[in-house]
Amino acid sequence: MRISELSAQTGVTVPTIKYYLREGLLPEGERSSATQAAYGEKHVERLRVIRALLDAGVSIAETRRVLGALDDPPASANDLLGTAHAAITPPVDEALDLTEAERLVAGLGWKPGMCDPAVLHAAARALQGLERVGFSVQDAVMAEYLASMRRIADAEIAGVPGESAEAAVRYVVLGSVLVEPLLLALRRVAQQVSSGERFGGDAGS
Amino acid sequence: MRISELSAQTGVTVPTIKYYLREGLLPEGERSSATQAAYGEKHVERLRVIRALLDAGVSIAETRRVLGALDDPPASANDLLGTAHAAITPPVDEALDLTEAERLVAGLGWKPGMCDPAVLHAAARALQGLERVGFSVQDAVMAEYLASMRRIADAEIAGVPGESAEAAVRYVVLGSVLVEPLLLALRRVAQQVSSGERFGGDAGS
Repeated sequence: MRISELSAQTGVTVPTIKYYLREGLLPEGERSSATQAAYGEKHVERLRVIRALLDAGVSIAETRRVLGALDDPPASANDLLGTAHAAITPPVDEALDLTEAERLVAGLGWKPGMCDPAVLHAAARALQGLERVGFSVQDAVMAEYLASMRRIADAEIAGVPGESAEAAVRYVVLGSVLVEPLLLALRRVAQQVSSGERFGGDAGS
Repeated sequence: MRISELSAQTGVTVPTIKYYLREGLLPEGERSSATQAAYGEKHVERLRVIRALLDAGVSIAETRRVLGALDDPPASANDLLGTAHAAITPPVDEALDLTEAERLVAGLGWKPGMCDPAVLHAAARALQGLERVGFSVQDAVMAEYLASMRRIADAEIAGVPGESAEAAVRYVVLGSVLVEPLLLALRRVAQQVSSGERFGGDAGS
């Protein structure tokens, strides 16, 4: 199909499609002449993924990393998560002190060498941000964070599709990135419900 | 103190401080002459909060909303979360279909009118993003999301400081925004730990 048909089928405007082509998010169509290219179902599917990621607040740079991970799945299921997470997590910051983060994630069952460094660095950066404003998470709350995230991960990993590396990468990468805004929104709704119960009456309107 | 001392004490460069002043994130110092202004502890503290938010990946626009919520706490604890969440959540999208989101959050104990519309819209947008790429969260996984977020919220709300509205707003707003990257990082670490256990050997490197 032509770029105008690709636009009509996906609801993405032609200038936006051209922008994604220039940014390398969408692969070029098959050249049919000097000024025309042909697009297929692969492009329709890829445009849906791009829109979902950008609408979820993922940056252009991270979207490029996510698409790269989808295009180039690792060979073994064992490396899957590390590779996928490394692709979608900002690069490590060597100067960061990991002591506190390592102590914390031990509560998840983590042992040294057990996960991609980028993910551990992300945890350390988050702790640093809290510390910098003098915000300390109470012990009981932190214990609940650890227990809940471990339970969530167990449920998610139990559901990783086993039929192909491609299906597994798609599940892991999209599941990591696109489920995040859902989890955060559910936490905020739950906070308002819980607050309404604690402080009585309706929790605002 | 002068702007150069404010810079030395916080490690934020003078041009960056001037940028925050122009963007309205940092209040002006007290004018001591036509070209000089005096800054105090309030500015040091505010710069720490700004840096923590921006480093956590919060946008300038959202940072401005968060700071607004810190400066203008609601009068009653009952309205606290709704007001704080409305301040830090993108505006509602009227065209969004909320049916599926409402069905889902009923599992958190939510009832109609019980939370700020912006938060419900955020959940609906997240569900829409998943649906658009054909990603369906398995029932067992979704049940774990709901149960975990409710437990987390209960622990968090139980810990809201009661001494003043200002302390409570600070706890709620910074707790919402700055804890988010920590939760997401913990989820990724837990996924790698869980994956390592399921697929055997080390989970990546």
